[in-house]
Amino acid sequence: MSPTRIPEATVARLPVYLRALNALLEGDIRTCSSEELATAAGVNSAKLRKDLSHLGSYGTRGVGYDVEYLRYQISREIGLTQDWPVVIVGIGNLGHALANYSGFSSRGFRTVALLDADTSRHGELVAGLQIRPFTELAAIVREHGVAIGVIATPAAAAQSVCDSMVGAGIRSILNFAPSVLSVPEEVDVRMVDLSSELQILAYHEQRKSNGGPDLEGVPA
Amino acid sequence: MSPTRIPEATVARLPVYLRALNALLEGDIRTCSSEELATAAGVNSAKLRKDLSHLGSYGTRGVGYDVEYLRYQISREIGLTQDWPVVIVGIGNLGHALANYSGFSSRGFRTVALLDADTSRHGELVAGLQIRPFTELAAIVREHGVAIGVIATPAAAAQSVCDSMVGAGIRSILNFAPSVLSVPEEVDVRMVDLSSELQILAYHEQRKSNGGPDLEGVPA
Repeated sequence: MSPTRIPEATVARLPVYLRALNALLEGDIRTCSSEELATAAGVNSAKLRKDLSHLGSYGTRGVGYDVEYLRYQISREIGLTQDWPVVIVGIGNLGHALANYSGFSSRGFRTVALLDADTSRHGELVAGLQIRPFTELAAIVREHGVAIGVIATPAAAAQSVCDSMVGAGIRSILNFAPSVLSVPEEVDVRMVDLSSELQILAYHEQRKSNGGPDLEGVPA
Repeated sequence: MSPTRIPEATVARLPVYLRALNALLEGDIRTCSSEELATAAGVNSAKLRKDLSHLGSYGTRGVGYDVEYLRYQISREIGLTQDWPVVIVGIGNLGHALANYSGFSSRGFRTVALLDADTSRHGELVAGLQIRPFTELAAIVREHGVAIGVIATPAAAAQSVCDSMVGAGIRSILNFAPSVLSVPEEVDVRMVDLSSELQILAYHEQRKSNGGPDLEGVPA
């Protein structure tokens, strides 16, 4: 891990680079230039080189980056070489989808418990885990050293679930409920608003429909 | 709609401002300063003022922004004052969750069809719509003027679904499958990688565990 704090915008791009590196490795590509990696990641290569320089990674002149080593460096920087026990609260369709999402388990995140307030669901098997009562949250956090809580409840329940998570000692929360959460300063919350991406697409779609600069006149 | 193209980073923040404005309106707050809106949106106020200036929105000195009018301006800019027919392909847990997600329908996005390749699912009712065969895609796109396609299939099926969408005339695709898609230049794809946010949290969590600068020494 580098001693200094990396810019937030760079942190946000590290998962993108990691995904691109995984795709290269799946294609059995062992070294790549910054241009190749930048293309695979969908960013410009100057930005990529700057980002990677924060990790102390500069590649080798004429050879480029060692794909596997760079993947290790980024994984270590993010902390994916550690084990991150995760608890998911709210096992409706979305919680169900998250519990089954292979992208979580393959990247250092281990779902240790699925919790729901609905007693009729308790004991039901989802992704190999039994749904447990929400009241067991604090005990589960203690037992497994849970660091990250995922909220997949309806919006109305999210703040109260969040408060319980914070009370149980969870300091990092991923919120899928369309609701802004209040937390103490030392707690990080990231919100995934599934409709934001759709809105960004709509913006571009509108430009296209109007024959705007998205369609023509802009160099590729 | 403003005549010039807005910076991509600003476009990405517009949905965040929209969400913050909706929260203010729910709290019956009719005007707000740029500082209040910036706090609600979780950005700094200088950035917010710069972003809104791209929309020609500067607020009124001593009064601030009219919440409802600003919401209208942003909605119009994104294109949410139009109707966007959406088709969702892949009605597993995630597709199911997306079909039921209230955040879509409330923001101008209208799901007109749910498609799945699994014949045993056809006719099943989800969120008031019957699941239909994937082979009907082209006809549905023509009939409803579908502009946006949502892919919620497993990774292995995503590229082939994407190709069919492009062939049917869809030019904006939201991809939830953990798989990078190849598309012609005129098609926009946005990828939602559910594990990226978890990785960003892990980065900060690691800093906290190591007693790094996230915990102390950084002004709030």
